Amino acid sequence: MTRFDFSIHATDGKARTGRITMRRGEIRTPAFMPVGTAATVKAVKPADVRAAGADIILGNTYHLMLRPGAERVARLGGLHRFMGWDRPILTDSGGYQVMSLSDLTTRNEEGVAFKSHLDGSRHLLTPERSMEIQRLLGSDIVMAFDELVPTTATREEQAAAMARSMRWAKRSRTGFDAGGAHAEGAALFGIQQGALDEALRRESADALLDIGFDGYAVGGLAVGEGQDAMFGVLDYAPGQLDPAKPRYLMGVGKPDDIVGAVERGIDMFDCVLPTRSGRTGQAFTRDGPINIKNARFAEDQEPIAPECACPVCATWTRAYLHHLVRSGEILGAMLMTEHNLWFYQTLMQDLRDAIAAQQLSGFASAFRARYGQASARAAG
Amino acid sequence: MTRFDFSIHATDGKARTGRITMRRGEIRTPAFMPVGTAATVKAVKPADVRAAGADIILGNTYHLMLRPGAERVARLGGLHRFMGWDRPILTDSGGYQVMSLSDLTTRNEEGVAFKSHLDGSRHLLTPERSMEIQRLLGSDIVMAFDELVPTTATREEQAAAMARSMRWAKRSRTGFDAGGAHAEGAALFGIQQGALDEALRRESADALLDIGFDGYAVGGLAVGEGQDAMFGVLDYAPGQLDPAKPRYLMGVGKPDDIVGAVERGIDMFDCVLPTRSGRTGQAFTRDGPINIKNARFAEDQEPIAPECACPVCATWTRAYLHHLVRSGEILGAMLMTEHNLWFYQTLMQDLRDAIAAQQLSGFASAFRARYGQASARAAG
Repeated sequence: MTRFDFSIHATDGKARTGRITMRRGEIRTPAFMPVGTAATVKAVKPADVRAAGADIILGNTYHLMLRPGAERVARLGGLHRFMGWDRPILTDSGGYQVMSLSDLTTRNEEGVAFKSHLDGSRHLLTPERSMEIQRLLGSDIVMAFDELVPTTATREEQAAAMARSMRWAKRSRTGFDAGGAHAEGAALFGIQQGALDEALRRESADALLDIGFDGYAVGGLAVGEGQDAMFGVLDYAPGQLDPAKPRYLMGVGKPDDIVGAVERGIDMFDCVLPTRSGRTGQAFTRDGPINIKNARFAEDQEPIAPECACPVCATWTRAYLHHLVRSGEILGAMLMTEHNLWFYQTLMQDLRDAIAAQQLSGFASAFRARYGQASARAAG
Repeated sequence: MTRFDFSIHATDGKARTGRITMRRGEIRTPAFMPVGTAATVKAVKPADVRAAGADIILGNTYHLMLRPGAERVARLGGLHRFMGWDRPILTDSGGYQVMSLSDLTTRNEEGVAFKSHLDGSRHLLTPERSMEIQRLLGSDIVMAFDELVPTTATREEQAAAMARSMRWAKRSRTGFDAGGAHAEGAALFGIQQGALDEALRRESADALLDIGFDGYAVGGLAVGEGQDAMFGVLDYAPGQLDPAKPRYLMGVGKPDDIVGAVERGIDMFDCVLPTRSGRTGQAFTRDGPINIKNARFAEDQEPIAPECACPVCATWTRAYLHHLVRSGEILGAMLMTEHNLWFYQTLMQDLRDAIAAQQLSGFASAFRARYGQASARAAG
């Protein structure tokens, strides 16, 4: 059994590049995890997700527990076999989606009771049940169950939620260990909370370090606070965590968010942006995102991004993708998503290379200058 | 320049197997053409359409003339380059869709005036314009422009529409030749009309043979008349056409329709059934079609069709496809469609092999016994 191991091969400022070794394969860091919400990275076959460069994908506990159900996935051989992805999968705890998607949520110290947004059925999610579900799914990296509060909450509410999340982190640790997943090579990550408050973040980090996890997520960001506020937290939060363990920024983000977060010491990311954008006509390029539905692309014979090495840019023009997306064709969603996954994975490889070459600062400056400048142009 | 050529390698009863040789590749017959309505075989990449065994696909003149427009496709290098399919493409004439999809159609001897179902814009489709559009698209097999009448029409209306279609066939021939597409290796097919009336079919066939075409379609079937009535026409209609040229049954059909039509001497088919069904949860198997959304598949760990050699059946279970289709996931439409294309192309290969081995009758009987029996079981 290959145990969870994180080795840092090079650092550049606060940034690090290295490798997580796990039972189902290696994860090159900094890593971007495509989101496979309902046992599929939407509109892309697993082999094409891998071909884009993804070492790991994310699955959503909330969605999977409701449909097809964790016990059913377990009877079908686990999430990897079910969806045909044999590399690592990280599952979230369900905590975020249960607050944002379900109806009639009631929370107390035990956990969160809610009605399914699909069929109104009643469910209870607790730290223990979240650990059980993630074990049934066969998750490789299990996330602790935590409590989210709105960004508009008071400091007292933020402090209370953080404190409860730390008690739930302890229960998650206990539940995870009791389930035996650790012995089988799965890893458990704790999630730091504390909103935009450095003292709360410190308190949360200390509580997590006291429990001990295989990795640490910075949670509660990318929820509307803006890039400046997020970077403000990232200026200190990663340094409050164990430097020998992977640091995961949940739900981030835009390409320039990722570059800035890597500069601040983040090792892992996930976001629906490349997949969701692909289904609505947004394509990423180093010159900024473009909306392929724009009339100016109707007869544009260039690929989405001339320098892109992806199979979509090798074969099809902006004019064709414009036609497909405007026509509502499924192939449009497929090809746009595949390109966007390549864009993100290529960016991650470039970041890893820049750190290894001690050239991250120059790379990041050049990336921002080009990516941001073009975005401003397109908006003008 | 490779000219259009049809060679028959073996016959078995009325059935034939052979090969059409064209500028963009060979077409093994009997052939099934997946439908690529709007410059895409819906939900499948061109390479996967080819991997399933398709030698040729069909494009729809009506859809393409409205969006993105024939002149635009021509400026973008033609339909093949636009959609990334470098093998033969057959385009229909637009005649069928303009009657069935557009608004406010008015017809006279000149052609059909109509309003687009997309944006209400006004268009005129004539034999000459249909030939021009198909030339602009870069079609390899161009279909003559004909007039369709409802199945409820009187014999007099059927006779008049057939006679007009033959005058339009002559204008199609003249327009096609004037456009120069023939010199570039494109082929022109005439379309026999005459509904369910043998004398009208004979009259139509004679008119077409007098004009002379590279191949002949049996038109006006598969429009609700039922399999018995269709086979009744196919018992004589193919024999009225030139035996040295390919015979194409337009818009057909169900797998058992195809088997029966091949037995009656048909060489080419097209139908939306494998692709459209794939998007709504119907999967084809030799034991009959199944609706993957049925609750009995929720934990079924078999592939869609255990004997199927397609990449979908090699990797995923009925349970997974059940989950994807029930969840409305794009990947469900992708995988179901890919499987169905393999089913159809594998059936065509089996038919070609059976004819070559002089065993078509036995193959067809065994196919019907298994396919029909299971369908009855599923319905019971």
